[in-house]
Amino acid sequence: MKASYINDLSTWASDFKFSVPVSVRFSETDMYGHLNNTIPFIYFEHARIEFMKEIKLMGNWLDPKGETFPVVADLQCDFVKQVFFDEKLAIFVKAAAVGNSSVDIHYMAKNNEGDIVFTGRGSMVQIGKKTGKGVPWTEVERSLFVN
Amino acid sequence: MKASYINDLSTWASDFKFSVPVSVRFSETDMYGHLNNTIPFIYFEHARIEFMKEIKLMGNWLDPKGETFPVVADLQCDFVKQVFFDEKLAIFVKAAAVGNSSVDIHYMAKNNEGDIVFTGRGSMVQIGKKTGKGVPWTEVERSLFVN
Amino acid sequence: MKASYINDLSTWASDFKFSVPVSVRFSETDMYGHLNNTIPFIYFEHARIEFMKEIKLMGNWLDPKGETFPVVADLQCDFVKQVFFDEKLAIFVKAAAVGNSSVDIHYMAKNNEGDIVFTGRGSMVQIGKKTGKGVPWTEVERSLFVN
Amino acid sequence: MKASYINDLSTWASDFKFSVPVSVRFSETDMYGHLNNTIPFIYFEHARIEFMKEIKLMGNWLDPKGETFPVVADLQCDFVKQVFFDEKLAIFVKAAAVGNSSVDIHYMAKNNEGDIVFTGRGSMVQIGKKTGKGVPWTEVERSLFVN
Repeated sequence: MKASYINDLSTWASDFKFSVPVSVRFSETDMYGHLNNTIPFIYFEHARIEFMKEIKLMGNWLDPKGETFPVVADLQCDFVKQVFFDEKLAIFVKAAAVGNSSVDIHYMAKNNEGDIVFTGRGSMVQIGKKTGKGVPWTEVERSLFVN
Repeated sequence: MKASYINDLSTWASDFKFSVPVSVRFSETDMYGHLNNTIPFIYFEHARIEFMKEIKLMGNWLDPKGETFPVVADLQCDFVKQVFFDEKLAIFVKAAAVGNSSVDIHYMAKNNEGDIVFTGRGSMVQIGKKTGKGVPWTEVERSLFVN
Repeated sequence: MKASYINDLSTWASDFKFSVPVSVRFSETDMYGHLNNTIPFIYFEHARIEFMKEIKLMGNWLDPKGETFPVVADLQCDFVKQVFFDEKLAIFVKAAAVGNSSVDIHYMAKNNEGDIVFTGRGSMVQIGKKTGKGVPWTEVERSLFVN
Repeated sequence: MKASYINDLSTWASDFKFSVPVSVRFSETDMYGHLNNTIPFIYFEHARIEFMKEIKLMGNWLDPKGETFPVVADLQCDFVKQVFFDEKLAIFVKAAAVGNSSVDIHYMAKNNEGDIVFTGRGSMVQIGKKTGKGVPWTEVERSLFVN
């Protein structure tokens, strides 16, 4: 079973350039003995923000005086392989498609053996604090996503 | 923007029969002042299990001697409206489609005004503890999902 | 073994008047099969805020234009009995002692059998947003805590 | 205000030898804009387990066939300084006192400037899975704690 947002898996996987390391915490397991299925979304948020910092897009969104902030429009995760306590994962992030004021972010988590353990995606929209509406990316911002 | 798993919204929404109440906790907010986007998945899990208990399908899965347990194959959430601290939500759950050993579960969260604040879906597979493979539903189990 | 903040247990326990119900979520368990030990603090926060709302002290602290907000100075929990998935707990709260600008809050969690499963305490200080210093309770506020 | 478990602060602080790095996640903040006060206990658990692994005491406790497992008897945290999103903390851990079958673990969190932002402690007891009672440390185990 392949996630709908993945066309060719090896091409899709090889296209990630950025990742953050995560170590599975004890409190993130559940009584089934593995990583609780709500936790990958915490990893996605963490990795997404690190990615935004890396490409220099996070600054405005954390500034209380900034005029825009990002809103997550949707999120999804496909669970490929069970993950257990203390596993070291790399959470990969990329901008798969850039819209007018939105961006489609893709995620891939690999364990130490290089196996994909879960994948995901979600779109994010840049919103104006006063208007509550989408604020288009500048040309510079668009270019930051794709380099 | 409509989620891909919703055909006609009013039909889809009116088809839910079961819900659980949830009150947004302070610790579930984030520095943007609203419900953190990782929390709806916690609500989904809680509501899904209450639903499974309601239709009498949860018993085996919590029994350490049971031979099967449920695995979440994928999860997604579409964020419709911001949610804030202390809001009272109803998390609706239904089995939208029953496969051989899997089931597609749909979710809808409404606030006190009756507004849909987020929707979601995810498939779940019944796995054999020894085989690690899908275990088909019995006829009785299939009927429990759809009544 | 008795917690240092409890003098006579039965007197201490009978002195609580307010409680909130909590149902242990699946995501709150860990791979040891019981409630993860970080979760009672989430229940304490939830119960404390409901208590503050009940005695009409929470209003100002949630108002973005309010001049004060509460800061938790310390927190502790004593684990008495293991807690498992789906247990229904009552989280009791009381103001055990009121200081100049602070209050010592005590907590007690009981399961459905009436057993105490964990207890706790923590002090909270009312801080001025501009000054960053403690803001003394008014006489009215002091009386709200102890009735 | 000094925590009851700290005698001389500078001696106490300089006595830590082991620490783990933690980066404050966005989902760990709350609507007051800072680290939610329930999160330090997650950091404590993470740091405590890393410490136990470091001194080679964690192995048995994660082995499903092991005969003992650790139970947290109590936990406390003193909040010294507000912590914000993306701060890099060092969570220090030490065994402050070793009992017959228990150990008193102390914690100290420092930010990048070297300020102590919170401190804590909690005792842990080694329990026999069959007996449900404390299992005394061996001489070897006792020595592992204090080196």
